[in-house]
Amino acid sequence: MGSPGSASIVGAVELGGTKVIAAIGTGPGRGILARERFPTGDDPARTLGSVAEWLQSQSASIGALRAIGVASFGPLDLDPSSPTHGFITTTPKRGWAGTNVLAPFRRAFPGLPIAFDTDVNGAAIGEGRWGAGQGIDDFVYLTVGTGIGGGAIVRGRPVHGLVHPEMGHIPMPRAVGDAFAGSCAIHGRCWEGLCAGPAIAARAGRPAEDMAPDDPAWEFVTESMGHALATLTLVLSPKRIIIGGSVRKAGKLGEAAFFERCRLQLKRALEGYVDSPSLTDEGLRSFVVPPGLGDDAGLCGAIAMAQRTSTGIG
Amino acid sequence: MGSPGSASIVGAVELGGTKVIAAIGTGPGRGILARERFPTGDDPARTLGSVAEWLQSQSASIGALRAIGVASFGPLDLDPSSPTHGFITTTPKRGWAGTNVLAPFRRAFPGLPIAFDTDVNGAAIGEGRWGAGQGIDDFVYLTVGTGIGGGAIVRGRPVHGLVHPEMGHIPMPRAVGDAFAGSCAIHGRCWEGLCAGPAIAARAGRPAEDMAPDDPAWEFVTESMGHALATLTLVLSPKRIIIGGSVRKAGKLGEAAFFERCRLQLKRALEGYVDSPSLTDEGLRSFVVPPGLGDDAGLCGAIAMAQRTSTGIG
Repeated sequence: MGSPGSASIVGAVELGGTKVIAAIGTGPGRGILARERFPTGDDPARTLGSVAEWLQSQSASIGALRAIGVASFGPLDLDPSSPTHGFITTTPKRGWAGTNVLAPFRRAFPGLPIAFDTDVNGAAIGEGRWGAGQGIDDFVYLTVGTGIGGGAIVRGRPVHGLVHPEMGHIPMPRAVGDAFAGSCAIHGRCWEGLCAGPAIAARAGRPAEDMAPDDPAWEFVTESMGHALATLTLVLSPKRIIIGGSVRKAGKLGEAAFFERCRLQLKRALEGYVDSPSLTDEGLRSFVVPPGLGDDAGLCGAIAMAQRTSTGIG
Repeated sequence: MGSPGSASIVGAVELGGTKVIAAIGTGPGRGILARERFPTGDDPARTLGSVAEWLQSQSASIGALRAIGVASFGPLDLDPSSPTHGFITTTPKRGWAGTNVLAPFRRAFPGLPIAFDTDVNGAAIGEGRWGAGQGIDDFVYLTVGTGIGGGAIVRGRPVHGLVHPEMGHIPMPRAVGDAFAGSCAIHGRCWEGLCAGPAIAARAGRPAEDMAPDDPAWEFVTESMGHALATLTLVLSPKRIIIGGSVRKAGKLGEAAFFERCRLQLKRALEGYVDSPSLTDEGLRSFVVPPGLGDDAGLCGAIAMAQRTSTGIG
């Protein structure tokens, strides 16, 4: 096991569509011993090569890694028995379709255990370990930002199934009076096409940060958020829904008001059908919540994934 | 363990909104050694008392029961630590709200293990053991009949979470050209309000059995089924979706045509977003399927639930 201080030092990679964040550490906050940011770009070999090299150099000065956790944008092949396990499959992101994400790390760290999952499953695992999902076996982590994604934790572990959830693309009802066509290139008015950052900007004609708190777009967006949260509540029966990503900060409306409106719209959409103390006005305050780890949920999740792998837990 | 023949004889109760089916047996088909049907009625004590008495009398002649499985309509309290575990909670069904479903069986069979779950989770467990879910760890069982319900199996076990899923009440987009207001007393145009038997009859002005195969109502219904199946595919990422219940038989349209249309509409709703061999024309034939146990899924599920309980497996 080595010395106690170094036993749980792992590498973590959060691979997003715009930036890659890499870290070496043992947990959140001061547990992150080194951190670096890389543009994702359109040359995966170059980007991932730089990340692997950085991990090597940091490891040389800080200490040997027990494992690496990689939480990536997708869609991904998560099937360990598949010949393309560890690949990004069909992304529209230029240069990245068919990328073997793990190969550069396997080359740089031969024999080291590498955990691999979606960015949102990673964030969900991180929130479960150190954030707003602690002690809760069944919850959902959402990111609502440039896109929308969700990770479902059921009995303490992320749902994979056929591929992995792609919650952002669920079909959506139309909010009352809403004429917006939606911005998803594939589905138009799916959840992502209504509530992701670019959708909000397209609807309002300005970025969400610049929208007035009483901009009617917020009403449509939070009503649609309520529809989607109701769907997740009815399909997955989670004990908590954690909403991360940039949209929750909600510019001039503010994070607290955004969450209050989402909770109200969830309650309206359910219309009292599910009877639980968690779905009362009081209960909803701890049913729909921001991430405990803030914007570090994904990175910390990659640390937690790596630690699970290195200990065989999880 | 007793003799091999009697070791796995259990009692099974499928408690529906119209009828209760009870059985004693070891599995599906010839494994059902005795079976009886009772009207659900509006006097739970009388109905459940009759069922418990019947199980006692059958057990006296056939053999001692190792356990009893009860799969019930809901909403239910499934939390073993709750003082109202085993109760139906808030059903609109006259007489049944607040019913302690398990008490009559506990009184009739003191000390016997009793497994308890929703009707659809029960059916899902049955299909997993002997039907269309065999060998599949992650799948969904749906019943589309008088109402719509769904049970999700994740890593071989049913999802409970906060309460249990209530998939039939998810908010739904409007099918193109559809002006139907929906028939759900609570939500109007939720999935159940669009696709359950009473919704189809209300839309078409006649029962589904009497509708012509080219009745436009089938087009709206199967398009809405496609939306809902897409939602479940995107949220749960199941490896298979099993559709039971009476609507699938689809009267003069026929079961095979109903499934073909549902698969086509699922594919349309996803628009190629999820890349999997299971979601191609060919793959969809085994992705969306009828129950392997036909209308006995729920009853056999109650048998399987009881056997899991008596062996400590599951």
